[in-house]
Amino acid sequence: MSEYSVSELNKAIRGSKRATYNIEEINAIIDDTFLCHIGYVWQNKSIVIPTAYGRMNDIIYIHGSLKNRMMTNLLDAGEASVSITHLDGLVLARSAFHHSANYRSVTLFGNVRKVENPDEKMKALKCILDHMVPDHWDNVRQPNQKEFNATLTIAIKINTATAKVRAEGVLDEKEDLNLPIWAGVVPIKQVAYHPISETDLSKDIEIPDAVLEYVKTNSE
Amino acid sequence: MSEYSVSELNKAIRGSKRATYNIEEINAIIDDTFLCHIGYVWQNKSIVIPTAYGRMNDIIYIHGSLKNRMMTNLLDAGEASVSITHLDGLVLARSAFHHSANYRSVTLFGNVRKVENPDEKMKALKCILDHMVPDHWDNVRQPNQKEFNATLTIAIKINTATAKVRAEGVLDEKEDLNLPIWAGVVPIKQVAYHPISETDLSKDIEIPDAVLEYVKTNSE
Repeated sequence: MSEYSVSELNKAIRGSKRATYNIEEINAIIDDTFLCHIGYVWQNKSIVIPTAYGRMNDIIYIHGSLKNRMMTNLLDAGEASVSITHLDGLVLARSAFHHSANYRSVTLFGNVRKVENPDEKMKALKCILDHMVPDHWDNVRQPNQKEFNATLTIAIKINTATAKVRAEGVLDEKEDLNLPIWAGVVPIKQVAYHPISETDLSKDIEIPDAVLEYVKTNSE
Repeated sequence: MSEYSVSELNKAIRGSKRATYNIEEINAIIDDTFLCHIGYVWQNKSIVIPTAYGRMNDIIYIHGSLKNRMMTNLLDAGEASVSITHLDGLVLARSAFHHSANYRSVTLFGNVRKVENPDEKMKALKCILDHMVPDHWDNVRQPNQKEFNATLTIAIKINTATAKVRAEGVLDEKEDLNLPIWAGVVPIKQVAYHPISETDLSKDIEIPDAVLEYVKTNSE
């Protein structure tokens, strides 16, 4: 399977030219950050919360405290919608109407289950941390039994998803092209800066390669 | 009124030390970006969509096409939840358990109405564009009647909101402080780069001051 199925739930109606259901493209967008926005229904309202995640194949893992309202509601609902968005630029047109943004975004829909199996749970926690900084899990003290038990871990199995990508210049009306008005794109990027070590660290403890590599990959 | 009221809807249960209901602090977080995530209920599911917005006093304005499913559903529901998140850093602890992020986030709840009054609607469109790039509205061709009519504009009046802010170093367990493990914070920032002018612009059209100012304010 190389594409997610398309139904009324995930079909992009508006801007359908920018939509893709290709799993590889969708995974690339998912893997390029670790912060998502999850929606849950509470008393007939949709509440949106930002949270960290990791991806393993077609599963999105999230974690939180045992009493986290978002997580307990997701478990009750049995399903979740997750949005992941990268802002890549401001598209400043000649006309107000054609202002836009360059972006890559995914909205995915999946079934929710609590991760009970200890092996899967430990792998999920590793997945979430390594999704933030690749290969950093092996550098740190891993969870003890108390921490492990205090962490609620949820697997969201992706059933279907849609990505939308805009990555181009200004699209103005033909009759506006000769107006004496500037138009262009302001590139935007989320960048990482050199790590600030804790002040109480021994001087002989160096910044791990995984962290330096993360900063290098995400610098300007 | 300097604080939003606290109810079961917006009370921060987890990490309540990081929570604030102060309207000025909440508005500062809202005004520091123009991209939010909005949740809506569709067939008992919560669906999350990224969109641009502007703020005027206690109103969040969004716009879209007349048939935008998210927008028509928000109008049907009469209420909306909006999440705005800034990622400011990775908090890399000695223990996996204490990994975190520095961030500023707002979750707000409000009543939804369609903006029908033409004066308010034009002001709302200006507000959304100027929220992206301050003072840029006056540089561009403003909407003609056709464009104006084709834009659905929604006002979300903020009833209540919660902000959560983490802006500090690593918080490890006491017994981990002497482990030979690195810990620190990787600062993260969304930055803007020099504008790329459209290639078909006349050479004598300069980049507007408002755009240059935006880039300067949002550069590294």
